[in-house]
Amino acid sequence: MLVIGEKINTINARVRQAVEDRDAMFLRDLALAQAGAGADVIDVNVGSRPSVEPESMRWAVGLVQEAVHLPLSIDSPNPVAVRVGLEACRNPSQAWANSINLEQSRLEGILPLVAEHGCHVIGLCMDEDGVPATAAGRVRAAQRMVEEVGRRGISLEKLYLDVLVEPISVVPHAAMVSLGTIREIRSVLPELKTVICLTAISFGLPARRLLNRTLLPLLMAAGADAIILDPLDHQLVATLKAMNALLGRDAHGLAYIAEHRANRLG
Amino acid sequence: MLVIGEKINTINARVRQAVEDRDAMFLRDLALAQAGAGADVIDVNVGSRPSVEPESMRWAVGLVQEAVHLPLSIDSPNPVAVRVGLEACRNPSQAWANSINLEQSRLEGILPLVAEHGCHVIGLCMDEDGVPATAAGRVRAAQRMVEEVGRRGISLEKLYLDVLVEPISVVPHAAMVSLGTIREIRSVLPELKTVICLTAISFGLPARRLLNRTLLPLLMAAGADAIILDPLDHQLVATLKAMNALLGRDAHGLAYIAEHRANRLG
Repeated sequence: MLVIGEKINTINARVRQAVEDRDAMFLRDLALAQAGAGADVIDVNVGSRPSVEPESMRWAVGLVQEAVHLPLSIDSPNPVAVRVGLEACRNPSQAWANSINLEQSRLEGILPLVAEHGCHVIGLCMDEDGVPATAAGRVRAAQRMVEEVGRRGISLEKLYLDVLVEPISVVPHAAMVSLGTIREIRSVLPELKTVICLTAISFGLPARRLLNRTLLPLLMAAGADAIILDPLDHQLVATLKAMNALLGRDAHGLAYIAEHRANRLG
Repeated sequence: MLVIGEKINTINARVRQAVEDRDAMFLRDLALAQAGAGADVIDVNVGSRPSVEPESMRWAVGLVQEAVHLPLSIDSPNPVAVRVGLEACRNPSQAWANSINLEQSRLEGILPLVAEHGCHVIGLCMDEDGVPATAAGRVRAAQRMVEEVGRRGISLEKLYLDVLVEPISVVPHAAMVSLGTIREIRSVLPELKTVICLTAISFGLPARRLLNRTLLPLLMAAGADAIILDPLDHQLVATLKAMNALLGRDAHGLAYIAEHRANRLG
């Protein structure tokens, strides 16, 4: 399972300030720390000021890829910012475009870039009415997304379906719906991959990290192929490592013992 | 889901000493602490010295049920100790006999006591060859257990099938087999209930509590009806409370917020 590190996002006030100040050191350190904690992909979202987003994206992508040799996820709904971000990548075919939905403007603005660069793309399982309340509704949106991607000649191997998760403070069954969507996609679209942004589950509640790390094993067991999360949350990463052992891929717990010896189990 | 508190067990050196010394205060405090942490049932295992086990059981049951008004789980393979323990219970129909397997001596020694007192009984999903390696094998043992219990006129509502878990240090897929057994029993024996002893998963590994609390959400999501665990492991209990919220039964996270305000989320 891939870990997409979510920390470089101007929704966070400190990151927003760093982007506005062009504080390269701060962003570089945030990228390095996430890489050191095991992130496989570094998400870059610099959309706090839409008018300068493309220029901010070019700047951020340039310095992050100097700091870490990991694929970047160009996180914007704005096709111009996605284009600039992908063009700034050393190896755009390894990058991610995050994200598209079924809106024509995003499909037509972003999918040609995905086709041109051969990069990965995250497709949100939502439709014109928003986020479907049921797994069945999200899978229907996923099937439409698969058609849109496929008919533009993009390999479905490049598509990650974001099953979405709503805060349980708003939708009590939110976790169960997202887990059901992952399982349903594995059943009806078994060649497709899934991704989910973990952190949204706990929005509006106290002790958010406890909820996040309690959901993580369920997502991994359901078979999520990638998870967008905070790699600097030590207990979350420790849970991920414990789950790797529980999934049965760790003969005699040797990898788990090694993580323990390296003091990486929280 | 029921929590069966596992702390009163002479496999622990301090508990063993307390039982041998007839240290009533120690056992009483251990019962009270587990009740305070949310245990629904208190397990009592005093089998470290088999020759005096029945007498130790009578003593322990007497003092524990004075301390807490919770059902007790009389934990012994020895029919004499189980009989003495049930007879010492104020309300034996609420008690648990823990446990039977398919051995004739245990079936014939313990099931008549279960029928007589109308208590609950835990049946281990193992057969003459030991613990089956697969979920299918454990379900076959469960089906034989159901027959044995049923033909003695005991209500199947009283039976909890222990799906068993082996240490992942020995059997890498152990967690997945146990989870599969719970799901399979819910599918083929939907009227039956399941129980599992969480702690065994991490035997032989470091950072055991991290593994235990990572497995817990998976067991709850799979639908385990009762879990034998350490209620004094604060992070484990916090995980349980977070999982209650994630299961969708906690409108707007109100119960979770209340637990947070009461400082019970670790």
